[in-house]
Amino acid sequence: MEKVTIGVLGFGTVGTGVVKTLRDHQAGLRAKTGMAFDLKKIADLDITTKRIVNVEPNLLTTDAYQILNDPEIQIVVELIGGYEPARTFILEALQRGKHVVTANKALLAVHGQELFEAAHQHQVDIGFEASVGGGIPIIRSLREGLVANNFTEIYGILNGTTNYILTEMTEKGGAFEDVLRRAQELGLAEADPTFDIEGIDATHKLVLLIYLAYGQHAEMKQVLTQGISNLQPIDIHFAKEFGYKVKLLAIARQADGMVEARVHPTMISADHLLAKVDGSFNAIYVVGDVVDSTMFYGHGAGMMPTASAVVSDIVDIARNLQKGVTNRLPLLPSTGESARFTLQAPDQFHSKYYLRFTAVDRHGVLSKISGILAQYKISLSSVIQKAGYPPDKVPIVMLTYDAPEHAMQQALSRIDQLDIVTDKTVLIRVL
Amino acid sequence: MEKVTIGVLGFGTVGTGVVKTLRDHQAGLRAKTGMAFDLKKIADLDITTKRIVNVEPNLLTTDAYQILNDPEIQIVVELIGGYEPARTFILEALQRGKHVVTANKALLAVHGQELFEAAHQHQVDIGFEASVGGGIPIIRSLREGLVANNFTEIYGILNGTTNYILTEMTEKGGAFEDVLRRAQELGLAEADPTFDIEGIDATHKLVLLIYLAYGQHAEMKQVLTQGISNLQPIDIHFAKEFGYKVKLLAIARQADGMVEARVHPTMISADHLLAKVDGSFNAIYVVGDVVDSTMFYGHGAGMMPTASAVVSDIVDIARNLQKGVTNRLPLLPSTGESARFTLQAPDQFHSKYYLRFTAVDRHGVLSKISGILAQYKISLSSVIQKAGYPPDKVPIVMLTYDAPEHAMQQALSRIDQLDIVTDKTVLIRVL
Repeated sequence: MEKVTIGVLGFGTVGTGVVKTLRDHQAGLRAKTGMAFDLKKIADLDITTKRIVNVEPNLLTTDAYQILNDPEIQIVVELIGGYEPARTFILEALQRGKHVVTANKALLAVHGQELFEAAHQHQVDIGFEASVGGGIPIIRSLREGLVANNFTEIYGILNGTTNYILTEMTEKGGAFEDVLRRAQELGLAEADPTFDIEGIDATHKLVLLIYLAYGQHAEMKQVLTQGISNLQPIDIHFAKEFGYKVKLLAIARQADGMVEARVHPTMISADHLLAKVDGSFNAIYVVGDVVDSTMFYGHGAGMMPTASAVVSDIVDIARNLQKGVTNRLPLLPSTGESARFTLQAPDQFHSKYYLRFTAVDRHGVLSKISGILAQYKISLSSVIQKAGYPPDKVPIVMLTYDAPEHAMQQALSRIDQLDIVTDKTVLIRVL
Repeated sequence: MEKVTIGVLGFGTVGTGVVKTLRDHQAGLRAKTGMAFDLKKIADLDITTKRIVNVEPNLLTTDAYQILNDPEIQIVVELIGGYEPARTFILEALQRGKHVVTANKALLAVHGQELFEAAHQHQVDIGFEASVGGGIPIIRSLREGLVANNFTEIYGILNGTTNYILTEMTEKGGAFEDVLRRAQELGLAEADPTFDIEGIDATHKLVLLIYLAYGQHAEMKQVLTQGISNLQPIDIHFAKEFGYKVKLLAIARQADGMVEARVHPTMISADHLLAKVDGSFNAIYVVGDVVDSTMFYGHGAGMMPTASAVVSDIVDIARNLQKGVTNRLPLLPSTGESARFTLQAPDQFHSKYYLRFTAVDRHGVLSKISGILAQYKISLSSVIQKAGYPPDKVPIVMLTYDAPEHAMQQALSRIDQLDIVTDKTVLIRVL
């Protein structure tokens, strides 16, 4: 039986899941592909901590170059995470003609261009299904299953930690900080949760989806990125009253070749299928001009779901090796493809808005605020002024019709300067 | 630029969608693949009716053999539907070394083995993404994206017509016959809706999913198939009271290599993501032992969604042609694969049940019915006896715990012979 030889860099959570899957599913993988998957070496700085899978000691090394320099190893699986040494290891693997599978979205979002060009130059492949949506085969779906489409809208719940926190805040109440602490205790949030809660992880993933859907390398700063750390229980409460749920959405929309890209807390109708994606689950809602609406749902992280995606890439490359082909799916967009689309500046989009003003309970406050909004041609669809609050902390909640983001920002900066407005206005975009 | 030459058999709804997509998306497809997609000929018995897409008259023919015998044509797209002449045309295309793309689930479910063997023998490919779930890339996902998994559970809403009817009955009420007539007027149900409403179409698709997931050719009669034509508004009403929604589910479950396969109306918790799949949408909920739960959602039929899937297969084959490979994904399961699983007999499964008995309002009726159930070791989780009905038409509703299907069938046949039971008992399985 033909065999494919694999080296794994990084024996942490996902690495352990990949090793476990390759072992436990040997028979199934052989049966499905007619190939044997030979895991030859695993490199990690820590090779003494016990993992949930037993491996022979001679498989383990602390030296990544025992993998990179081994001419027998055909596929290098990078599961170290972070920028370095992952970037260098991947580049060295590509230069040695090895195929690479990685789950490293941060690295690909920032250095993807360099890595994809290197892979193209050396005529090898990079599999990265695990980098977005964990076990959900969204990368394949955009590149292959939905290849006939121009994508008009992509809405992703791409970060399980924040979706868990938002679900808890919605269902059980509680302040952001308390729910975050609980999530950390449960292992659902990292000790340093910044990348997750500030939306950076979701933006990394959105950058990859935009690359696949539109052939555009978006830089991080080209994507409006807002996290959930400032969300108040009161806003989640008002969202419910209006029939909305708050989700951290990664959004890409395209019309006439112009692509907008943003990540921020978003109110979506409680009836929308995305609103039912709760807990740590992820989902990507994709609208194509041929297929119309689709949605892909599953675990966006975790040892085994991520391993499922990594192993699918290993199998894909093995099937290419079996047939003697590489670069069957191009990693670099053609000139034609990248010429069809242009990334918009981050504030060049329209949205509906939820606004919560905190004001002194004085006659005329409503007319002053709505007067400024009107100057910027922002129209209101609902207004709620709530009683039962301290006289200097009266919440006024408004929903607007579609308005340009830059007009909204200008209006808010003027409103926040009013004497009668006591706190910074809360803005949540509405889908 | 390399080009791939295509012939289309069948210029009906889907054929028109495919032709439209290949035309409207020429630039996108070229950019994504570096290839030109040359639609050389379209065959249909009717080449005079106006379609929504204009084609040059010399592209049209009433003679399928102008496509089958044209050595330039590399891919034959079969969109005629039904068993013959579709089967013969596909076999002849394969024999002439042409690749085939088809949306024909009925044909593949019944004659798939013959066609796949012919394709294997002639070393060409058959693409059939459109045959299950319309535009949803579920076939790719089972074969590639989730290849690492043993599939433990597959639940599909695979028929848009019945899902539309059930959604209408649930949301707006109305008898099955009236809602069906409305669906027919809206073009959402066929003039002869038998295949849809009796579950046959869903079973065709389930047979294909089982083939992909377990390498087993299930025959139609090996799958318990029940449609929705006997569903009563009262049962949909009671389902709601218990917190359920009724969906026509295609179910495949596997444990220890034993695979159960069935299609029937099913009560699922209103909180389950599948319960939110409404209208004519389809969804496939797949649980893998590595990835855990996933769901794939989209339009399961219609001109353009189906065309999206057909064109994705054309592109896939074009990419293989570009690289000079075929049979990259095997169409035939290996001996190893088919040896891992065995299809169970149709009544060898367990389920929870909803039962509605119609009985004479007489003392002791409840104890008689529950007594028979107890003899078959069927335990009840809830019982509702409703007042306000004619004394010979009193509904008694029960929910059971998990019980064997064959025991349930035996118990019901005894209960239905009781004098006090006036109508045939309604049984709906509960997920």
